[in-house]
Amino acid sequence: MSLDLPAIRALLQDLPVADGGAVAAAAARQGRLTKPAGSLGRLEEIAIWLAGWQRRSRPHADRIRAVVFAGNHGIAARGVSAFPAEVTAQMVANFERGGAAINQLCRLHGAELGVVALDLDRPTADFTGGPAMTEAEFGAAVAAGLAAAEAPADLLVIGEMGIANTTAAAAIAAAIVGGPAADWCGAGTGVDSAGRARKADAVTAALQCHGEALADPLEVLRRLGGREIAAMFGALLGARRRRLPVLLDGYVVAAAALVLHAAVPGGLDHCIAGHRSVEPGHGRLLDRFGMVPLLDLGMRLGEGSGAAVAIGVVRAAVACHDGMATFDEAGVSDKD
Amino acid sequence: MSLDLPAIRALLQDLPVADGGAVAAAAARQGRLTKPAGSLGRLEEIAIWLAGWQRRSRPHADRIRAVVFAGNHGIAARGVSAFPAEVTAQMVANFERGGAAINQLCRLHGAELGVVALDLDRPTADFTGGPAMTEAEFGAAVAAGLAAAEAPADLLVIGEMGIANTTAAAAIAAAIVGGPAADWCGAGTGVDSAGRARKADAVTAALQCHGEALADPLEVLRRLGGREIAAMFGALLGARRRRLPVLLDGYVVAAAALVLHAAVPGGLDHCIAGHRSVEPGHGRLLDRFGMVPLLDLGMRLGEGSGAAVAIGVVRAAVACHDGMATFDEAGVSDKD
Repeated sequence: MSLDLPAIRALLQDLPVADGGAVAAAAARQGRLTKPAGSLGRLEEIAIWLAGWQRRSRPHADRIRAVVFAGNHGIAARGVSAFPAEVTAQMVANFERGGAAINQLCRLHGAELGVVALDLDRPTADFTGGPAMTEAEFGAAVAAGLAAAEAPADLLVIGEMGIANTTAAAAIAAAIVGGPAADWCGAGTGVDSAGRARKADAVTAALQCHGEALADPLEVLRRLGGREIAAMFGALLGARRRRLPVLLDGYVVAAAALVLHAAVPGGLDHCIAGHRSVEPGHGRLLDRFGMVPLLDLGMRLGEGSGAAVAIGVVRAAVACHDGMATFDEAGVSDKD
Repeated sequence: MSLDLPAIRALLQDLPVADGGAVAAAAARQGRLTKPAGSLGRLEEIAIWLAGWQRRSRPHADRIRAVVFAGNHGIAARGVSAFPAEVTAQMVANFERGGAAINQLCRLHGAELGVVALDLDRPTADFTGGPAMTEAEFGAAVAAGLAAAEAPADLLVIGEMGIANTTAAAAIAAAIVGGPAADWCGAGTGVDSAGRARKADAVTAALQCHGEALADPLEVLRRLGGREIAAMFGALLGARRRRLPVLLDGYVVAAAALVLHAAVPGGLDHCIAGHRSVEPGHGRLLDRFGMVPLLDLGMRLGEGSGAAVAIGVVRAAVACHDGMATFDEAGVSDKD
């Protein structure tokens, strides 16, 4: 399946919103549980948020799906990563054999892991000289992401793997948010200051090359993104259309989310931020989304790994919301 | 069993330290796993720290024990809590029936929960007029905590329940750290500004009443603490003597930890902070310990609940450390 740009734009219309009745019922339940009101902090917020999107006052966190999208990038040839481009495919093989961090984290939390490798033998074009993807390539990648969000789940975790993709994320952020290119370019997998300068040079060249076309968020994604980033945009959009709540991972996922945020006001209301990456641009994107991440553990791996650690927090929220006794049930005296 | 003060002081001598060989071996393993060096952030630190205390390069997180210590406080009669004192015993019954937040969190993470209720029908004396505990009462409470740390475990989680115990925690903190009493007195279970003022008045009166005796951390604990706080001190000390790593919960646990920190340099090296409570004094104690909490989720419930959410982070650290493939095993190219 592929999609042309008008078809993608049509999918952005009339997105569903959270169920206010379920939100109110969940909030009322929180007030009756055996604890001082508000004392579970963000665990209460998470349970109420999930209730709204799952449209039930007692949300579930049993079926959790994590999907890692992988793509290769023409920009990798410009020395913007500490690792060679073949590592993308090697890590996909590692995911499939169960040896990566994301495998351990999904196993720990009983989450199902899917890996969507997108044409790894056909890197995107170097975006400093033209669009990273043709319209057909872009449509196919978005469609792959939409398809990945079709399976039923209580929560979707989105992650990625793609050597050089923090440079693509930086280009998307610089195009949509603005500001100096260097501010969006961190160490990625571990490049030195010369590597960071090469990243910033690539972003600056891309902004000059694509010019006015970057006024359209979808064109930003097609011209500066990668297949895995376009697919994550598709997955975020598909999840929203199905009212499936999403736990976001790091910087590259946030760049995909930024496109949806720029295209549709409130487009990320079905998402929460799992963690804050060390990558400096990530925190700035989360601020722009108005999101406070659940975790801040100094992680910068990608693969959905930060969000996968945060699954434990979401499950904790649901466990308390669903399993705790009320003041009446427990015979505990309420506040005076 | 009870203990006199000299016996407790003797237990503070010659505390064991982490195993440097296991630390080095665990750090070396982290460097070989299929990820950029350092990219798992604090998950790497946690695994290496656990390795040192468990004295094995691949630490376990299978047997996790949470213990909630409960006590009642004479100071409760001064209107320092939003809840009546009988709630301590009601909540202990709730723990025993499985209806509290800590029950749900332990079940989620496969942790065993123990509840140690300390003479709930005999509140400590009001510490504004004399010592909260006699030497015999104090020794018995410390002994109960030492006993609670005897069962084998990979990790111990320490929590508490005790109406009015944030006022006792504030008094301990003010006595050992200093500063205005009001700075150590937060909303607790949800008191208003008048309630906070009553807490600060009680702390100020206590400091005046006990005077020079507060130069000794153990006397601070006996005179201003509660049975559950003395027991948590005992559990922290007992855990250290057995090289059992500990995950700390919130403000009242930190007050118990402060006594050990003040009594023995490095006395908390076997502990990490599970979360930062909303209670403002907690963050200041963590700063004093040099600890950055794993979570900051706006929680202020006690019961060990914040630390119990953080069990998920510790298990994530161990799962990655133990289960990930090395670069060699996975055939992944290392950094150039």
